[in-house]
Amino acid sequence: MKEIVLLGSTGSIGTNTLDIVDRFPDEFRVVGLTAGSNDEKLEEQIRRFRPSLVAMADPAAAARLRDRCRDLTVKILSGPEGVAEVARVPGPALAISAIVGAAGLLPTLSAIRTGKHVALANKEPMVMAGQLMREEAQARGVRILPVDSEHSAIFQSLEGHRREDVRKIVLTASGGPLWEMSPADMQDVKPERALKHPNWKMGAKITIDSATLMNKGLEVIEARWLFDIPASQIEVLVHRESIIHSLVEYSDRSIIAQLGLPDMRTPISYAMKYPERLVLDLPSLDLADIGKLTFHRPDHDRFPCLRLGYDSLAAGGTMPATLNAANEVAVEAFLNGGIRFGEIAEIIRATMESHTRRELECLENALEADRWAREKALSLVTALAR
Amino acid sequence: MKEIVLLGSTGSIGTNTLDIVDRFPDEFRVVGLTAGSNDEKLEEQIRRFRPSLVAMADPAAAARLRDRCRDLTVKILSGPEGVAEVARVPGPALAISAIVGAAGLLPTLSAIRTGKHVALANKEPMVMAGQLMREEAQARGVRILPVDSEHSAIFQSLEGHRREDVRKIVLTASGGPLWEMSPADMQDVKPERALKHPNWKMGAKITIDSATLMNKGLEVIEARWLFDIPASQIEVLVHRESIIHSLVEYSDRSIIAQLGLPDMRTPISYAMKYPERLVLDLPSLDLADIGKLTFHRPDHDRFPCLRLGYDSLAAGGTMPATLNAANEVAVEAFLNGGIRFGEIAEIIRATMESHTRRELECLENALEADRWAREKALSLVTALAR
Repeated sequence: MKEIVLLGSTGSIGTNTLDIVDRFPDEFRVVGLTAGSNDEKLEEQIRRFRPSLVAMADPAAAARLRDRCRDLTVKILSGPEGVAEVARVPGPALAISAIVGAAGLLPTLSAIRTGKHVALANKEPMVMAGQLMREEAQARGVRILPVDSEHSAIFQSLEGHRREDVRKIVLTASGGPLWEMSPADMQDVKPERALKHPNWKMGAKITIDSATLMNKGLEVIEARWLFDIPASQIEVLVHRESIIHSLVEYSDRSIIAQLGLPDMRTPISYAMKYPERLVLDLPSLDLADIGKLTFHRPDHDRFPCLRLGYDSLAAGGTMPATLNAANEVAVEAFLNGGIRFGEIAEIIRATMESHTRRELECLENALEADRWAREKALSLVTALAR
Repeated sequence: MKEIVLLGSTGSIGTNTLDIVDRFPDEFRVVGLTAGSNDEKLEEQIRRFRPSLVAMADPAAAARLRDRCRDLTVKILSGPEGVAEVARVPGPALAISAIVGAAGLLPTLSAIRTGKHVALANKEPMVMAGQLMREEAQARGVRILPVDSEHSAIFQSLEGHRREDVRKIVLTASGGPLWEMSPADMQDVKPERALKHPNWKMGAKITIDSATLMNKGLEVIEARWLFDIPASQIEVLVHRESIIHSLVEYSDRSIIAQLGLPDMRTPISYAMKYPERLVLDLPSLDLADIGKLTFHRPDHDRFPCLRLGYDSLAAGGTMPATLNAANEVAVEAFLNGGIRFGEIAEIIRATMESHTRRELECLENALEADRWAREKALSLVTALAR
């Protein structure tokens, strides 16, 4: 029986994780849950999985949850500090880090610092402070197990093969909801359209990141630190069907890849049960049924965000944190109708250009860059909205 | 420096193996070579790689070779016993088994019995007597490393993952030179046409096996014993481009696959250097360049030989050896113009139907079935040729 804490339980990864727990009640026990503001859903999860400790980042939601759960003994904390406290709870061997955005950074670090292995679905810790996260994990002897389908694919394709034989990593990209759209139409695409992902049902933020290909830019940064491999050895390949989740090429030109139908429960369960695998009663991939798989080079003109990801990695230091924060602000502004789709990349680029890069000596530098970039990007959004 | 003996040095696998040795003179030293009847090519190889011991299966060719190599100190043996003596030579840690057909069985077994790991390109040892080969290898503590691109792909896709988590193995098949041909045209296809393989440049026997899909039937049998997995967990998938060399599905529906451009030097070098990899200066697979990969179910009506492979495995005992021998005779008869293409499967089926299956208690049973099936198949060929 493995005890787990689940950071970000009401989102897409969180609910899929609890689906795995539900299927394997003898394998996992949920000790702690955290959520942002969805107190109704968290209440349901508390009643189903009976954690002893939960937290909500939004204090008003935490108050509502306390009201809902008066008949239960669960301890309910509130605010970011409450979320971090759940991450620090002693006992569980594994934390599933599934908080969306930069808010996941500190709780994930808290989990690592208290000796928990981390199943990482939240990109931002590695994007904002990958080197520091890696060093912390090494110092505590804990594993960071990727949950993202692409990084899980790379992780699985590296297992059993020698790291020194790796020639390059190829991250596949679905191309997102707008791959077939003309450059002119893309500029003014509406949020409803950009939210229609062909293969994956995900949250709004990550679906827009998929539409801009910033998601892949962030994944390149994440891969750089998860697998300690230079950006020059990380490629991106557009693969519309999302069947080959990613590939690793070795020195003898042999390529190992991981494939499957797009279902997050496979990579989530792999990270949860690693190095063993669970028997998941899910549909099997039948390639004859699918008939064909297609591949394209990424289009950097229509999708400038991918290049910005590489650029931020080349600049290093606090630049990836800056890119990430500006992207969060720009995507939110787009979803709220404040800016046009084509302006997302412009805001990120302008924020990066005004940023005075610093070395990433400590977490505070990443957080400071994050704060600065949010302000800067917000001012750019406001200027555009006028 | 790894010492090797190469059994079957003048064929396609043999020359590719020597190409690897040529590229890595500090890694490998050739101690022994064997060939069938091509004394001219073997002479070249002797002068280039300076083995101390060679053998030719054909005594007349061995005599010609002795004449050619009078200025050299190399010891030249002849006949099947000479070939087996090279396989038994003390010292080398690895034998590359690349003899075409049933003639490879005894030399391969000799190599195993003298404690050599075997890089196995020759299917017949596993097809005719897989269980015995497996038991012998286990008893001597030696590895059988597959060289066939499909089995190498499976081997590589199993590395680092737990055998008990394997759900099934999927062998890919190019479909061979006749995949697009109508059933009527296939019946009377000429050898020249059937020898035109779309992806692989191989010997005549294996190219015809590819045209009938018997090659895949033999590979199913080989996989059954190489990986100790029941036939019910082995599937075949037609994949015209020969880029995904095979796949393994695990219990969580995750699939690991090995891919690459069709070049036998990758799997050969992997088996030679395992568990490390060599740095091969070969073209990289660029999936965006290739654009798409296609998949189809095998067509058992047009390609009855694949089903015969499964049937022989279901019957077990001496039946796979019978299938294999009848196939060798039928393919040779087809290549010599003695029978029609469509009659290859008929001869194999008729031979299997007349065979009295025995358990595979010892190698002699497999060899006896092989002899019997050759006679039987030959009589069927003669009857048809009338």
